Amino acid sequence: MDIRAYVTEKAREAKTASRRLATLSSVVKNAVLLSMADQLESQSAMLLSANAKDLEEAKRQGLSKALIDRLTLNPKRITEMAMGLREVAALPDPVGEVIKMWRRPNGMQVGKVRVPIGVIGIIYESRPNVTVEAASLCLKAGNATILRGGSEAIHTNAAIVEILNKAGESAGLPSGSICFIENTDRQAVMEMLAASAFIDLIIPRGGEALMKTATENSRIPVIKHDKGLCHTYVDADADLSMAYDICMNAKVQRPATCNAMETMLVHEGIARAFLSKMIKGLQEAGVEVRGCPKTRSMVPGLKEAIEEDWTTEYLDLILSVKVVRDMDEALEHIARYGTQHSEAIITRDYGRARRFLSEVDACAVFVNASTRLNDGYQFGLGAEIGISTSRIHARGPMGLEELTCAKFIVLGTGQLRE
Amino acid sequence: MDIRAYVTEKAREAKTASRRLATLSSVVKNAVLLSMADQLESQSAMLLSANAKDLEEAKRQGLSKALIDRLTLNPKRITEMAMGLREVAALPDPVGEVIKMWRRPNGMQVGKVRVPIGVIGIIYESRPNVTVEAASLCLKAGNATILRGGSEAIHTNAAIVEILNKAGESAGLPSGSICFIENTDRQAVMEMLAASAFIDLIIPRGGEALMKTATENSRIPVIKHDKGLCHTYVDADADLSMAYDICMNAKVQRPATCNAMETMLVHEGIARAFLSKMIKGLQEAGVEVRGCPKTRSMVPGLKEAIEEDWTTEYLDLILSVKVVRDMDEALEHIARYGTQHSEAIITRDYGRARRFLSEVDACAVFVNASTRLNDGYQFGLGAEIGISTSRIHARGPMGLEELTCAKFIVLGTGQLRE
Repeated sequence: MDIRAYVTEKAREAKTASRRLATLSSVVKNAVLLSMADQLESQSAMLLSANAKDLEEAKRQGLSKALIDRLTLNPKRITEMAMGLREVAALPDPVGEVIKMWRRPNGMQVGKVRVPIGVIGIIYESRPNVTVEAASLCLKAGNATILRGGSEAIHTNAAIVEILNKAGESAGLPSGSICFIENTDRQAVMEMLAASAFIDLIIPRGGEALMKTATENSRIPVIKHDKGLCHTYVDADADLSMAYDICMNAKVQRPATCNAMETMLVHEGIARAFLSKMIKGLQEAGVEVRGCPKTRSMVPGLKEAIEEDWTTEYLDLILSVKVVRDMDEALEHIARYGTQHSEAIITRDYGRARRFLSEVDACAVFVNASTRLNDGYQFGLGAEIGISTSRIHARGPMGLEELTCAKFIVLGTGQLRE
Repeated sequence: MDIRAYVTEKAREAKTASRRLATLSSVVKNAVLLSMADQLESQSAMLLSANAKDLEEAKRQGLSKALIDRLTLNPKRITEMAMGLREVAALPDPVGEVIKMWRRPNGMQVGKVRVPIGVIGIIYESRPNVTVEAASLCLKAGNATILRGGSEAIHTNAAIVEILNKAGESAGLPSGSICFIENTDRQAVMEMLAASAFIDLIIPRGGEALMKTATENSRIPVIKHDKGLCHTYVDADADLSMAYDICMNAKVQRPATCNAMETMLVHEGIARAFLSKMIKGLQEAGVEVRGCPKTRSMVPGLKEAIEEDWTTEYLDLILSVKVVRDMDEALEHIARYGTQHSEAIITRDYGRARRFLSEVDACAVFVNASTRLNDGYQFGLGAEIGISTSRIHARGPMGLEELTCAKFIVLGTGQLRE
């Protein structure tokens, strides 16, 4: 198989489709999404049998139980995917929105209008539901997609895309709007990253190796969904009961996510009063706590937190704890070890809350709330294709608006450049 | 000289400065800009003598008269640069603006705040005033810059940056805020494009070769300022006198710019009435007109427009003219040959105006106005670092806002993820 020719042909199809998609009405797009939802449900048998092939292969290869669980479809998960499609159909269409419009002294009106980006390439390693989420959000924002999922889900993903396209096309979706790369060779990813004539944006979703591949090789703009090494700083003036609840939530509620807390920073003025109860609670919830020397002197029996702990995104029930002299030390620690993802302060002090908001550089900065709330649904964006750790175009949770760009329109009456 | 070490050290300095720049108050930034303006003027003798070195070398190398003119500084041009700095000081500071803020059902407030991008690398080939413009706009938006100008202006650019930094630092500018790469080796550009640990955004301003180098090699997001192959479509329902004025302006007022018209498309219904007068006017203004067969049958004596003409950005007093059957043919021609830069329709018909605005994919689409108006000042952005031809982050004229990104802030009262 000539992988370059194959990927280029898919990308070209997506580009052609994207021109028609850009002017498709919301009515048609919504009908397409609802038809997809219905077909996913009514063809669940076909989906489950494709999934069975992937599961068989996964077991043969001895994949971990967690990975196999993520890969597994069942009627409940299929219904959830269908519900997701119906929710996207119900969201307002971002395309065509006049973001602002103003009049110039020479009388011409200048406006900024939201338009689709064009073709979005998504490279992902995660669960099959990402296929549905990514394709539907891009489609609602008027974009064609070219999808490259993980090899372990290839049969499931291919079946999903087939159902989506068939259902979509019967409701008016241009052919080629959702292209799936049915090739697991790494070269296929490299060819996507090189297809700058057809693909306008690359969104990689996955581990560090994928981020590095995309950043180092792409000739197309990349919006990264990279890791989060997130801190919560419990200030001298914190409400300690609130701090307890927030830190517990940030660590325990779903530790494998990018916005979970990995390091807790505690002001030394309240450390003795706070830490023993907090650490006991965390340990009872199954968390392994590792401490700096001061932490270990206050709460005996903890494992030592070494330099590597401050730089590790555990994604697990492990937490490193550091007692800091003052807020300056907390800010320095965050600037040095943080990944500019989700950072929180717990305090009742107005000035320090304000300073934290202004000085901490991260895609989301929290006062008195759990870092786990860094999420498109929680923020009210209606949906989320992921959390951008890039600074360009979109930063933080990406909803439908972030899957569009803008063009200027000028309504004139004969204006010239003087 | 170890070019990698040299560029990396400059980029590291800029990164360090950018952290302090991000929280610098508008008062200090404006004082810095005004001090720079004063010093540029009071040190004009030093500037002119540095410029003389570049001019001498340019003459020795036999550069064209146009290039030497662009390179030349004189007291008037220095005053213009100083005035530009004072204008940037007078603009509102985009940093810290709360773009929007809302309340979630759980009571937390979520806001989006404008923050600097960080370190912006500018690679340019143009006149020395770009050094002042780029550095001052990035600075006002809280960014550090790392500048790589053309070799022919190296002494002038180095002198400008020295003056800006000295004047700036005396008024509170962090050292390293404006870094100049005083090395004309191509490797220096390659090292900038690889310094993704320190540089957050690359803006190349120049010719096609530079765009290609940046796109193909950068590990850092790139916002291109690429070429414009711009069309004006004179519709069957155009006000012919308005069309005459607009086309004349779009072609003749400053033909060497990216938003000048390169191809005029004329509906066959009014072609006979319109073209003879229009082409006569253009020719009297010194324009060489090249026509399609229909154009040449209506206005004898024209050179033939061949396929290459439709794909050429002349940047000169040359125009290709095509008579089209209908609007569909005009739209197809623009989609096929345009560079998504500046596209205009001249019409009195409401429906076709609307259709043109919606269907033409370009960073600026005009009804009844000259494409030459695609410009940050003309649009009222207050300033312009250039016109982005990228679709990601910024599209069209880039002002101060486009030199920022955003972060989410969350003001909570103990909210958790359920």
